Amino acid sequence: MDSSSDTIERWGVFEYSARASCDGNPFTDVTFGAVFRLGHRRVRVDGFYDGDDTYRVRFMPDEEGEWELETFGSLEALDGQRASFRCVPPSEGNHGPVGVIDRFHFAYADGTPYYQVGTTCYAWTHQEPGLQEKTLETLAAAPFNKLRMCVFPKSYRYNRNEPPLYPFEGEPLEDWDFARFNPAHFRNLERRVEQLRDLGIEADIILFHPYDRWGFSDMPAEADDRYLRYVVARLAAYRNVWWSMANEYDFMGTKCEADWERYFRIVQRRDPYQRLRSIHNGHRWYDHGKPWVTHASVQSSDLHRMTQWRETYGKPIVVDECRYEGNIEEGWGNITAEDLVHRFWQGTAGGGYVGHGETYLHPDDLLWWSKGGELRGESPERIAFLRRFLEDGPAGGFHPAMHRWDRHCVQRGDGAEYLIYFGWSQPAEHSIEMPAGERYHVEVIDTWRMTTDALVGEHSGAFTIPLPGRPHIAVRLRRI
Amino acid sequence: MDSSSDTIERWGVFEYSARASCDGNPFTDVTFGAVFRLGHRRVRVDGFYDGDDTYRVRFMPDEEGEWELETFGSLEALDGQRASFRCVPPSEGNHGPVGVIDRFHFAYADGTPYYQVGTTCYAWTHQEPGLQEKTLETLAAAPFNKLRMCVFPKSYRYNRNEPPLYPFEGEPLEDWDFARFNPAHFRNLERRVEQLRDLGIEADIILFHPYDRWGFSDMPAEADDRYLRYVVARLAAYRNVWWSMANEYDFMGTKCEADWERYFRIVQRRDPYQRLRSIHNGHRWYDHGKPWVTHASVQSSDLHRMTQWRETYGKPIVVDECRYEGNIEEGWGNITAEDLVHRFWQGTAGGGYVGHGETYLHPDDLLWWSKGGELRGESPERIAFLRRFLEDGPAGGFHPAMHRWDRHCVQRGDGAEYLIYFGWSQPAEHSIEMPAGERYHVEVIDTWRMTTDALVGEHSGAFTIPLPGRPHIAVRLRRI
Repeated sequence: MDSSSDTIERWGVFEYSARASCDGNPFTDVTFGAVFRLGHRRVRVDGFYDGDDTYRVRFMPDEEGEWELETFGSLEALDGQRASFRCVPPSEGNHGPVGVIDRFHFAYADGTPYYQVGTTCYAWTHQEPGLQEKTLETLAAAPFNKLRMCVFPKSYRYNRNEPPLYPFEGEPLEDWDFARFNPAHFRNLERRVEQLRDLGIEADIILFHPYDRWGFSDMPAEADDRYLRYVVARLAAYRNVWWSMANEYDFMGTKCEADWERYFRIVQRRDPYQRLRSIHNGHRWYDHGKPWVTHASVQSSDLHRMTQWRETYGKPIVVDECRYEGNIEEGWGNITAEDLVHRFWQGTAGGGYVGHGETYLHPDDLLWWSKGGELRGESPERIAFLRRFLEDGPAGGFHPAMHRWDRHCVQRGDGAEYLIYFGWSQPAEHSIEMPAGERYHVEVIDTWRMTTDALVGEHSGAFTIPLPGRPHIAVRLRRI
Repeated sequence: MDSSSDTIERWGVFEYSARASCDGNPFTDVTFGAVFRLGHRRVRVDGFYDGDDTYRVRFMPDEEGEWELETFGSLEALDGQRASFRCVPPSEGNHGPVGVIDRFHFAYADGTPYYQVGTTCYAWTHQEPGLQEKTLETLAAAPFNKLRMCVFPKSYRYNRNEPPLYPFEGEPLEDWDFARFNPAHFRNLERRVEQLRDLGIEADIILFHPYDRWGFSDMPAEADDRYLRYVVARLAAYRNVWWSMANEYDFMGTKCEADWERYFRIVQRRDPYQRLRSIHNGHRWYDHGKPWVTHASVQSSDLHRMTQWRETYGKPIVVDECRYEGNIEEGWGNITAEDLVHRFWQGTAGGGYVGHGETYLHPDDLLWWSKGGELRGESPERIAFLRRFLEDGPAGGFHPAMHRWDRHCVQRGDGAEYLIYFGWSQPAEHSIEMPAGERYHVEVIDTWRMTTDALVGEHSGAFTIPLPGRPHIAVRLRRI
């Protein structure tokens, strides 16, 4: 028995471990967990077996104060152990987990707005350690605050290499013991999630995906369910975890709708923190209106439909995949940087959020979208510019305003700020009529060149804004 | 009585005129026309009153030989007159009228393929004569082989000037005698149609449109019908005439579906040559499946739906309006030249046809799309490049082939030529599998830079084509 520390910051991870030996399969034959208490509040948390006769339970305290815990377990050495720790204020940069606010948007638990600006490295934790470190180095300098990543390794064009670690004991290919996890695999995953957390990046953990040659996409239901419980027990305490039930769930031919509902139920029931949950589609969208979905995770090119999707689902819309910057022959991975940056602004100006990916051909198949490594595209610095724009304004997200078919317009802060985005159009002027009695400062933003030009003076009522007559222009109006 | 000539080339215009005086209204109280005969063939043609006690009947002979005519009329001087002329072979460049072939495409009557590459100058014949001449001069050097133009003047933003001539007698605004046409207006219109014909340009004559301050969009049904008969009698003989019932028909609130059916019926019944007929939409598409519609004339931005529209209507699809190159604030008139050229190739690679328009702000409101004048954009020379591409290949139009969501592919000549177009995508390579046993020459086309690079050697079976990794690339494969 030991505890990692007697003092844990709010929204940090407290870990309690105990040792016991088991004659059978410790992954399946032993139960272990703990009940955490603060005053009259009780939180029951599943533990997990981590190899070497070691059982652990992890917990994220969300309130400051003196927490106590008492273990439960099916082996004597695991049962009825007590410990306590003090939860202290969060350190700088720790804003807590991200949740949904204002129906369509996100914020950290401390109220700081979270403007989702995601990227994608599906299999980065399945590459050699040096490449994983390089990915973290790149992310540290990149604008992204969310990363989509798979628990399972990936088998797909440009991704034929075997991973250093597998999630189960056994031998590739397909001679796995799905009842015995490989702790080393999950320890690496957790460390990477922690490192992302320390970079301020949410980890959108993809639990299943179809790009598989090892059999992980087609396990028996019992193995699926055990796997989900194990992942939740290990990872849920990290405040930057989001759950993505799948990448392209509808391309997994052996799963049916009822399977996905069961997976959602398991995660929903086992996760003490109710981390954000969604599921990403290939061709057929999931019904994100279902109550266990916290936000829509979407693959679509049709970002002009953002406001329509908001109305359909009544939840935050994150278009995680709208085609990637790159030059591969597959159409989902060969749009220009201009186009991807445009899609980010288009989604923003529709009241939603967009994700990045990069797929430039590389002699060693080092494509960011799958393996991480280095970014070579031109969109990230423009996405950084967008992120600064989002964070420099009234708190809260954008909502549709003043709809017209030929441009997007949103407002936030009850009209304190308006954003109008013209996309690929190149108007040389724009006429507008603002609410009577209000005065505004007007800025003309070139989203590609990353410039912001303030118009002289104050504007009110009906007026015409001169524009540069080239694509990728946005206008911001700030109420005085 | 006189005839313009005793010898008329095939598909030229023969005109016969007669003089008579009438106490009442010669436009409504007098009937006049002629029956033209070649052997046992008889063609009944309506004449029209052209002012100055002069009645005319025009006829386009479509067969060589000795034609005879006999007039009919409700005044003695107009009735039973006889004349004859010899129809001789067409002069160079006269390929006859354009008709539908191969269900989805067009050809001239002599079999020459007609690849529609249109533009738009709605009100060019309503400008000062000097500007009309300038428009013709511009068109002579431009790639376009069809022009959309209105019979009625237009009242809309950037188009507030009064026209030099009105179609009816009376005084603006709205004190018109709809029962008395203004022959001078129609003589100018005809002369311009003739001049277009001599430039090899089809005149897509728009019979009604909503942008009106004179009352021409809201005449009594009787006046509408008389107007249609008059226009058909005057213009149908010009082989380059197409009939467009309306521009944005659904924006004409005082017309109902039955009105449009009646207009189509009148034109269909009165036009001896059955010129091409369509109708252009605003928001609500006309049902182009109706039997009196010869081809779909469409306003839409969704050119990736071209193949779907072909299937829906089973007719040639002409997207006459897909947004114009320009910089006005209205979204339908501010796309870049790149985007418009892209739309032309996208439509072509979907097995259809696209139209051009240009709307750059001008200190004197000289916007090509409405008034004509000069072209200032960058798309026309690229559209010329496309036209040369279309005319340099197996005769006939393109049909969808090898569908994939991320690029367009069409073929013509039963697989003699394939066109693959990648649009805004920037693949650096493309893998393809061609029909077994065939060999191909491969060309990589930069549709924006207007370059064509032939790959070395012959290609067959499955192979990968290296591409430049930038947008606007097409590939042509020609069977050897």
